[in-house]
Amino acid sequence: MPAKSLPFAQSEYDARIARTRAEMLARNLDAIIVSDPSNMGWLTGYDGWSFYVHQCVVLPMQGNPLCFVRAQDANGAVRTVWMPDEDVHGYDEKLVQNLPLHPMQELVAVLDDREIASGTIGVEMDNYWYSAQAHAELVKGLTSVTLADCTGLVNWQRAIKSDTEIEYMKIAGQIVTRMHENIRELIEPGMKKNEMVAEILRSGCLGVEGHGGDYPAIVPLLPSGADASAPHLTWNDEPFKSGEATFFEIAGCYRRYQCPTSRTIFLGKPPQKFLDVEKAVIEGIDAGLEKAKPGNQCQEIAEAFCTILERQTGIVKESRCGYPIGISYPPDWGERTMSLRPGDETVLEPGMTFHFIPAVWQDDWGMEITESFVVTEDGAETLSSVPRELFVK
Amino acid sequence: MPAKSLPFAQSEYDARIARTRAEMLARNLDAIIVSDPSNMGWLTGYDGWSFYVHQCVVLPMQGNPLCFVRAQDANGAVRTVWMPDEDVHGYDEKLVQNLPLHPMQELVAVLDDREIASGTIGVEMDNYWYSAQAHAELVKGLTSVTLADCTGLVNWQRAIKSDTEIEYMKIAGQIVTRMHENIRELIEPGMKKNEMVAEILRSGCLGVEGHGGDYPAIVPLLPSGADASAPHLTWNDEPFKSGEATFFEIAGCYRRYQCPTSRTIFLGKPPQKFLDVEKAVIEGIDAGLEKAKPGNQCQEIAEAFCTILERQTGIVKESRCGYPIGISYPPDWGERTMSLRPGDETVLEPGMTFHFIPAVWQDDWGMEITESFVVTEDGAETLSSVPRELFVK
Repeated sequence: MPAKSLPFAQSEYDARIARTRAEMLARNLDAIIVSDPSNMGWLTGYDGWSFYVHQCVVLPMQGNPLCFVRAQDANGAVRTVWMPDEDVHGYDEKLVQNLPLHPMQELVAVLDDREIASGTIGVEMDNYWYSAQAHAELVKGLTSVTLADCTGLVNWQRAIKSDTEIEYMKIAGQIVTRMHENIRELIEPGMKKNEMVAEILRSGCLGVEGHGGDYPAIVPLLPSGADASAPHLTWNDEPFKSGEATFFEIAGCYRRYQCPTSRTIFLGKPPQKFLDVEKAVIEGIDAGLEKAKPGNQCQEIAEAFCTILERQTGIVKESRCGYPIGISYPPDWGERTMSLRPGDETVLEPGMTFHFIPAVWQDDWGMEITESFVVTEDGAETLSSVPRELFVK
Repeated sequence: MPAKSLPFAQSEYDARIARTRAEMLARNLDAIIVSDPSNMGWLTGYDGWSFYVHQCVVLPMQGNPLCFVRAQDANGAVRTVWMPDEDVHGYDEKLVQNLPLHPMQELVAVLDDREIASGTIGVEMDNYWYSAQAHAELVKGLTSVTLADCTGLVNWQRAIKSDTEIEYMKIAGQIVTRMHENIRELIEPGMKKNEMVAEILRSGCLGVEGHGGDYPAIVPLLPSGADASAPHLTWNDEPFKSGEATFFEIAGCYRRYQCPTSRTIFLGKPPQKFLDVEKAVIEGIDAGLEKAKPGNQCQEIAEAFCTILERQTGIVKESRCGYPIGISYPPDWGERTMSLRPGDETVLEPGMTFHFIPAVWQDDWGMEITESFVVTEDGAETLSSVPRELFVK
């Protein structure tokens, strides 16, 4: 077995398992089957781009978790998880993308062997990576088991970050700060968007002194002009144009921990509506961050922002204003638990980390100025340090 | 509505829809619900990084497809699909990651409104993006519908590429050729892996003259030494070392069409086992490509390769030797239909495109020399032109 270089101390993995089991106990679950790669990595350290085939971590109430991956990925699991080799199971290659054969058929046998195939087992019903067919196979195969929904169970345990996790996210914050510096320096009318993305990806990977960058869970999003009315367009090889705004929604990433930060750049002289919205957004962010204190609720951050935006610009924001962040794999750097939106009464606690993204997408333009922050005893501390403004060049 | 810049002519989308409907008819399906972003894009043109929330394309037997996305993504859909705006439905933001609310609840209502909620509707049961919960919601809501599995139905229609698709894949092939040239030029002992990835991503995005690069569906994989025993490890900030081999599994991408190509580089003097395997792999690839002719079967390519590998090196390859490629979104650039492996009797036809990846992963080392190719009337034509060798530096 190779020397391992795990990103966290064993005590941290132990604490994560204990926290997760406490919630399993509260829900009367005898085991959980975790398909989300972020949850798998958080519990065991497993790290590899193998989530395009079925895989999971099985956590019973006693003993080590089991990492269940494709046979050819077992070596990668052995090299990245904290458990001994016998807790990695590589399933038969012939089950890969070969219906009606299915990897979950082998999982059923493995759970039997390990005497986990009884009682109530939680599955992440609404997670990508846990397909309808995977569920159908387990329902069919686990005849002595009651399957229960545990969507988000592990995600919720990730909400409060450890010191090491926050340290990694601050490094990711330094990386995204550097990325935005490069964008500001390089952007000009006529530069092609794919050329800009080339530089963004390069600086994200180079990282900052002593800390190489990892891959963010989402590629750079940088729509310009009317395309900025849509939040999730990527890029093409058209040039940036004078008289247009472009927002750059990007993240730094360090050891799978992400710090997203968006900024908008206007090439030329921005119309008054941009300046008005900029002013409202910045004041709204200040007001929202002011509410990001232990004891307050998620919705208070959103309400503080939306009140100012609507009062100053008449714009009513319908989508949420943010979500928790931390360890992530594609396709999303959000944790899918809390949301910064009206109705979310989750109480903020020190160590929670969010991407506060009070973006404004209008019919034919858009503006994103966002902040990632950690809740501390004293309030919000931002994780990156990009000048909070509509940048005009 | 903005001027659209679709990657294909309307006649090509029409042909795709017709081909898909012929198969739907053969299976007695009245409609299909397509959750795979590659299938969604292939049918409608939809292009955006929004697959981290539920979305789909609904294709009935008559009329236009419906693009069902989150409200904030409706602008992006309107800007990228070939259908008129009324065929884009943006669902309520409050359904996003807010269980027990679920986007499929609104889809049920939309299908009712459009009078599609009857008969037999196909769903992609074993696709990431079609979660167990999404299926449970449809089962609950579509009370007058029989849901049938249509996993792979659209994927199979994608198997034979059009001339334009092949043109895009050849551009992607030029891009990956350029990327490998850069790697060979830059690699040396002491260079950090994240620095190399920075240059790989940069050259992939810069593309080739006149053609900017798009994002591949998988990030660069470049394990070294014993880590190369595992196919899906990504990178860290450790340096390349003399006396170690690293394989680079990367792809060029143009307008979402991918051309993966892997090569292995040995820094220093390779041990004899590397040279022996190199020789067997190259001869095996030649033999496999020789079999890649219309009328032959997928398994013949794998068998030709494996016979030579085993005879020359004693290594028995257990994982498959390749898969079809084309349009793709993360997490996979494979099409998940055919496989180049024993038992796959699919007959090859002109216009089919594959990544032939007869990789050798041993206990403490690995080698990848791969080729992407298109089947022509005259046999296989490779899509990239990277020297086929173990590169020694």
